[in-house]
Amino acid sequence: VTPVRSCLYCESAAGDLPQAVVYEDREVVAFLDWRQSAPGHVLVVPRRHMDADELFASETGAALLRAVRQVARAVRRALAPDGLQMGAIVYPAAGMRGSGLPHAAPLAGDDEEETAEDHHFHLHLLPRRSAGEVARIFPFGDAVEPAERLAELARRIRAALVAEALGGTD
Amino acid sequence: VTPVRSCLYCESAAGDLPQAVVYEDREVVAFLDWRQSAPGHVLVVPRRHMDADELFASETGAALLRAVRQVARAVRRALAPDGLQMGAIVYPAAGMRGSGLPHAAPLAGDDEEETAEDHHFHLHLLPRRSAGEVARIFPFGDAVEPAERLAELARRIRAALVAEALGGTD
Repeated sequence: VTPVRSCLYCESAAGDLPQAVVYEDREVVAFLDWRQSAPGHVLVVPRRHMDADELFASETGAALLRAVRQVARAVRRALAPDGLQMGAIVYPAAGMRGSGLPHAAPLAGDDEEETAEDHHFHLHLLPRRSAGEVARIFPFGDAVEPAERLAELARRIRAALVAEALGGTD
Repeated sequence: VTPVRSCLYCESAAGDLPQAVVYEDREVVAFLDWRQSAPGHVLVVPRRHMDADELFASETGAALLRAVRQVARAVRRALAPDGLQMGAIVYPAAGMRGSGLPHAAPLAGDDEEETAEDHHFHLHLLPRRSAGEVARIFPFGDAVEPAERLAELARRIRAALVAEALGGTD
């Protein structure tokens, strides 16, 4: 894996940012979004810098789906949300302002905004707080979550992943 | 493929509904949502009745991503939207009211609502009309599109798919 300079997702995948990681394998890493649109809001990311077009044509796409499945089962077990959605940008807009703030670091400013030319795919796995509500990512209304809160959520989700792997039923 | 009774996505995949199909292969079919949240709003669906949990663990998951990629390239070529998003329900909410109306038929009422127990995965591929806007599916504010308009959009996207397959650059 050759990280791309100034790509927050590459930095996350390399462990260079203080992420609350919930899952990782050779090709994929999943960690809590710094802005928890709902408790358990996770980003699932290919380690290698690739956009949707490259990812969906590669074997890593299947690895990503398997990771999403495992994380989804764990979030469901750990947090019992009322449903789970997923969402992602497939092609970024040209300007990518307004909805393009990176989710991989708490202090990323406009100058570190994603660009259409250099997009590292990241899939949002988003719990619903209640059946009547539809989970939303944008516009960003959610404050950056304290690191301790993220660590606690991640711990619960990782524990649920282990329980899933062991085949338990609760 | 054994269609599930009263599942609109199974009916769509079997060709039993008047869908504006933009892509199909052995495992996956893609057609225009009856409610065009933006022009070119496509549903990508496994032919077989399966939820996200089953799909993401199967080879059909990779087939779905490849289909999403091809359709995304075609929509981009045909309609030049300002970006493309994707979204899907991974686990439906228990009651699934409010955001659970099927998109596969124009006249589906509440009595044909999807249920959490019997969910046929469907991925929304959603163009953005402008960079400033974030594409939304819910709440449903969009009227059912006239069949002629859907057919015309589908024709343009299918033509772009052929052009992509032929490797043209425009």
